[in-house]
Amino acid sequence: MRIALGIEYDGTDFLGWQRLSHGRSVQAEMEAALSFVAAHPVEVTCAGRTDAGVHARCQVVHFDTGAERSMRAWTLGTNTRLPPAVAVRWACPVADDFHARYAARARRYRYVILNRPARPALEARYVGWERVALDAAAMHQAAQALLGERDFSAFRTIACQARSPMRELREIGVAREGDKVIVEVEANAFLHHMVRNIVGSLLVVGRGERPVRWIAELLAGRDRSAAGPTAPAAGLTFLGPRYPAQWGLPDEVSR
Amino acid sequence: MRIALGIEYDGTDFLGWQRLSHGRSVQAEMEAALSFVAAHPVEVTCAGRTDAGVHARCQVVHFDTGAERSMRAWTLGTNTRLPPAVAVRWACPVADDFHARYAARARRYRYVILNRPARPALEARYVGWERVALDAAAMHQAAQALLGERDFSAFRTIACQARSPMRELREIGVAREGDKVIVEVEANAFLHHMVRNIVGSLLVVGRGERPVRWIAELLAGRDRSAAGPTAPAAGLTFLGPRYPAQWGLPDEVSR
Repeated sequence: MRIALGIEYDGTDFLGWQRLSHGRSVQAEMEAALSFVAAHPVEVTCAGRTDAGVHARCQVVHFDTGAERSMRAWTLGTNTRLPPAVAVRWACPVADDFHARYAARARRYRYVILNRPARPALEARYVGWERVALDAAAMHQAAQALLGERDFSAFRTIACQARSPMRELREIGVAREGDKVIVEVEANAFLHHMVRNIVGSLLVVGRGERPVRWIAELLAGRDRSAAGPTAPAAGLTFLGPRYPAQWGLPDEVSR
Repeated sequence: MRIALGIEYDGTDFLGWQRLSHGRSVQAEMEAALSFVAAHPVEVTCAGRTDAGVHARCQVVHFDTGAERSMRAWTLGTNTRLPPAVAVRWACPVADDFHARYAARARRYRYVILNRPARPALEARYVGWERVALDAAAMHQAAQALLGERDFSAFRTIACQARSPMRELREIGVAREGDKVIVEVEANAFLHHMVRNIVGSLLVVGRGERPVRWIAELLAGRDRSAAGPTAPAAGLTFLGPRYPAQWGLPDEVSR
């Protein structure tokens, strides 16, 4: 049978989601823990691979198993075998043709910028840092130029392996909350480094170094070298994917 | 001259505020960094000593120095000598009779409980965890019995060195925000472990194991052994002290 899991992790001490031979990955930790609970080797497929240092509030994965276990065992049992930085939040049986990656219709990310003169300490793992006072309203206005189905070549890392640079960006908001500026963005899918590259360019606008219209110009120019630097991984959290209601997944990833 | 600093720290990897011979303390880190910037030995006095693992959003300290430095140097210069988990947020010259501890008229703490079946991962450093669904409204109602000038012996650790068990609790609120239950409390001052012991007993009420009136009974009984267990340090953050406006400190610690 096929099972879907909602998992949460602090990405600080991982090389990222994907299993790699030279260091710790969330995928390898998940597979080791699930293989123990299942008592057979388990491979997991995720909704959205995250980079080194990027966090997840609700990553969704699926795996196949012949082992008969309760959903409670797949959740709490697996958690006893996972390191403190990773936890399964829920488990849910799914149809055999559910696929955590291909069935997802949308993905949502949040980027948090601590905006003050002093560097972060208390939440250093979870924020990017900008000491110059940002104009969040200008950033928000600039970001609206990214809405729609677009060629995001300007915000794509050279290492990106996606076949097409087209993505549909459905929502992007920039808002100040005290000394934080928070960017939330939803798209059908994202290119490699796309959120961090968009945030890096919005920061240039927020500092007043470029006008609001610059983001639209960058997008149209499709030239990665013209855009701002990639924002640090720490500020980024994958909030989660969304699936059509037919799959019967929990509300937070269903609609 | 005397200088006040507003500092922030992640207490996870410290034995607490106070300098100790057998491990890392925030005080020792602060004194080492300030002594470097001042080029003479500096001793600091804080508004409220925090325990091992407890965090601070705005701890206030004062110290004396003959060194002529800009407030920018005391802030950003000191930060370059501090570990990543500690940062000076602001520096402010104060009158020679200002005292970070004795001048404080109030202190405010926040305790965050992650309330869900799965253990925390993403914010494990900053939350306590309760898997049983809590009745936050009952906790809030029960907590109101603690308001006023009271003998808090029931919520005081045996190691507490305060001469009097009397404290004036001015505000306490318990509220749910999604899967978190947040306790905020303000008093003129707190006994050792007082917030964590109050939270530990409120959790007993929140789980429905004791009625709302139990907190009032505990308070009246003045018996620590009758109350709930001490809640874990990770969930606790010292939001900061408050000083009379005459001292001219930044708004967030002034009123």
